[in-house]
Amino acid sequence: MSVVPKGTAVPRGFSFSSAHCGLKKRKADLALFVSESPASAAAVFTTNCVQAAPVCLSRRHMAHAASRMRAVVVNSGNANCSTGPIGVKASETTAASAAQALGCSPPEVLVCSTGVIGVPLPVGKLTRAIPDLVATRQPTPEAFSRVTHAIMTTDTRPKWAAATCQLGGKNVRLIGCAKGAGMIHPNMATMLAFVCTDAAVPHRVLQEALRRIASRTFNAISVDGDTSTNDSVIVLANGASGCTLIEGSGTEFERFCSALESICKSLALAIVQDGEGAQRVIEIEVRGAESIGDADRVARTIANSPLVKTAFAGADANWGRILAAAGRSGVNFDPEGAEIRMAGIQVYKRGVACKFDERAAHRKLLGRYVQVRVDLGVRNGQAESEGMARIWTCDFTAEYVRINASYRS
Amino acid sequence: MSVVPKGTAVPRGFSFSSAHCGLKKRKADLALFVSESPASAAAVFTTNCVQAAPVCLSRRHMAHAASRMRAVVVNSGNANCSTGPIGVKASETTAASAAQALGCSPPEVLVCSTGVIGVPLPVGKLTRAIPDLVATRQPTPEAFSRVTHAIMTTDTRPKWAAATCQLGGKNVRLIGCAKGAGMIHPNMATMLAFVCTDAAVPHRVLQEALRRIASRTFNAISVDGDTSTNDSVIVLANGASGCTLIEGSGTEFERFCSALESICKSLALAIVQDGEGAQRVIEIEVRGAESIGDADRVARTIANSPLVKTAFAGADANWGRILAAAGRSGVNFDPEGAEIRMAGIQVYKRGVACKFDERAAHRKLLGRYVQVRVDLGVRNGQAESEGMARIWTCDFTAEYVRINASYRS
Repeated sequence: MSVVPKGTAVPRGFSFSSAHCGLKKRKADLALFVSESPASAAAVFTTNCVQAAPVCLSRRHMAHAASRMRAVVVNSGNANCSTGPIGVKASETTAASAAQALGCSPPEVLVCSTGVIGVPLPVGKLTRAIPDLVATRQPTPEAFSRVTHAIMTTDTRPKWAAATCQLGGKNVRLIGCAKGAGMIHPNMATMLAFVCTDAAVPHRVLQEALRRIASRTFNAISVDGDTSTNDSVIVLANGASGCTLIEGSGTEFERFCSALESICKSLALAIVQDGEGAQRVIEIEVRGAESIGDADRVARTIANSPLVKTAFAGADANWGRILAAAGRSGVNFDPEGAEIRMAGIQVYKRGVACKFDERAAHRKLLGRYVQVRVDLGVRNGQAESEGMARIWTCDFTAEYVRINASYRS
Repeated sequence: MSVVPKGTAVPRGFSFSSAHCGLKKRKADLALFVSESPASAAAVFTTNCVQAAPVCLSRRHMAHAASRMRAVVVNSGNANCSTGPIGVKASETTAASAAQALGCSPPEVLVCSTGVIGVPLPVGKLTRAIPDLVATRQPTPEAFSRVTHAIMTTDTRPKWAAATCQLGGKNVRLIGCAKGAGMIHPNMATMLAFVCTDAAVPHRVLQEALRRIASRTFNAISVDGDTSTNDSVIVLANGASGCTLIEGSGTEFERFCSALESICKSLALAIVQDGEGAQRVIEIEVRGAESIGDADRVARTIANSPLVKTAFAGADANWGRILAAAGRSGVNFDPEGAEIRMAGIQVYKRGVACKFDERAAHRKLLGRYVQVRVDLGVRNGQAESEGMARIWTCDFTAEYVRINASYRS
């Protein structure tokens, strides 16, 4: 059964396919995104200074062919990271093999891998599967649906989102999918996300849009504070909708960005929701900071505190841990001027605890989506977006530990 | 039964007592350290910008009377943090009450609290118990032993250490105790440590010694990366050994520092070993960095990675997580030049995995004390202490989550 409904409008000029090439025992482990005509590409990659071979190769290909990208090949089951020169060669071979089958040049193909670190990628399994993978590609929701499964590792469910918007009298379509559930057995996993759109956007405009949007979506989520060696977000825009070229400003640009952001945010939240062992998504909003940077630092410290995250596992209105995490973030504020709300309940104000019904708070905190508001009180009366940041995380359960502590076998 | 053996040499001129004043249901919850003559004091406190009332008061008292300190009063069961002006008043009343019973001035008494945040301290329970607490103080190992229990919260065992050293022909004695096991139900806990010595050390020399030593001991451990609002380490030196005054340099100073460091390190490791749910202590040593600061940053990032810590819970030789944590620390290095050893086994070298026996590694990693060595390879051939840092942490088990997720009741 297709997770992507039959009637879903797939962006024109894109096709998709998936295969089981043998990296993973039972499930599909190879996926292909193809733009039938040259597409503008934008990409953001992991900031970890340990970078997997496919990330290094894709960076290089982006430098050469970001305005005429044709395809992305994704394998699950092996990260191809810390695999030395043969790892780089394996990624090159993968791209060359797809390029040959598609009739394009190797730099017009991006490569992503996710799975175990430090194990050589058996690239022969990929090259044997790629001709058929290319030949069987289809421009359908069903094919896209199979791709959302093929990129999964320990994800418990496929993650996808679609949007349309009217640009210059044309219906522009966007569709995206992602994988990621924190870091996984037997090594670390990766967040990968792919968005295809038939909008016409120059590479530089698309790249700037993605950079802005990623900071508010994919870079604003945290499952465990660990950044993978393979994280990649790739957007392809092929212009097949026939819309006019979107410039880097103006209402058309803003509306396109808004559609792209809705997809990225939906995928990012789906990753948090599928966090290893997670029961609920926690939105941490920090206001009243001196700057957005300060607010972000406080929000991230709270979102990554094991004490805060375990308290949420128990639906415990434990504001002392939130206050203490904010206090150790390195951002200066006066606790006497700060306020904390959990699930809409004021729990801390002006240096002391508020009186509130613990049992009622517990019931509210058992929800699937819990909002935390911290006002540092450093700046008041400012515009909403100044001194404010929002981070999404999930609770930290014993199940997370069980998933991550299991001995590799 | 006394945990501190009968024959232990307690520093001269110190006495100790403990009581059950009713903050905790069953166990002793009040402790007193007294120097019978004015003592030099040194103290380091939490760097969290949210600071509990007893920390604020003790800072003030240190500013006034660091060269003539007489006592420390410690309660467990209530942190007296985020309790507003009445919290400050409660700490002041505690110090004044002890000062009156001892016949000294209030600034000559330091106050520490540990326990739940945000609940007003019922100070009457303390003031009613203090006269008897002062009257029953004793200069014995048994009395010190009871103090090590009275300061405990979720600690599963008391933590203490003693040392002696010859300074200027006199036997100088040091004894210390600590509490702390990560952060605890129902709010956050605290690391508290107290060292008493009959060495003669001016306040400024003692403070500088403690600052240096704390950075290599108490500030080099991490159970969960969370810094409490109440953390305090206090050293009292009353000179009752009759040794000559120790100046800020020279062999006498170095030997005193060495004895003080041995106690601080022993107490710090005992805290990690008693980390909530911990099965083993992990020593993370990072070498070959550009600077000590870089090495420290990498070591702390590894030590606080939930993925690394859960892997150790499973005794999994999961070097990919260690490399990835180092890579996201913000310190630049070339993974091709880096090396990792776990429990003496080389697992990663020059960009690729080493061949090693996974089962043998697993058996070694099941130990109670596991060493991890990361060489970043940025600088080679340097003196051992350059570009090197060592951090101690513990593994992260499902038991930690169970302890910290339980709903306050």
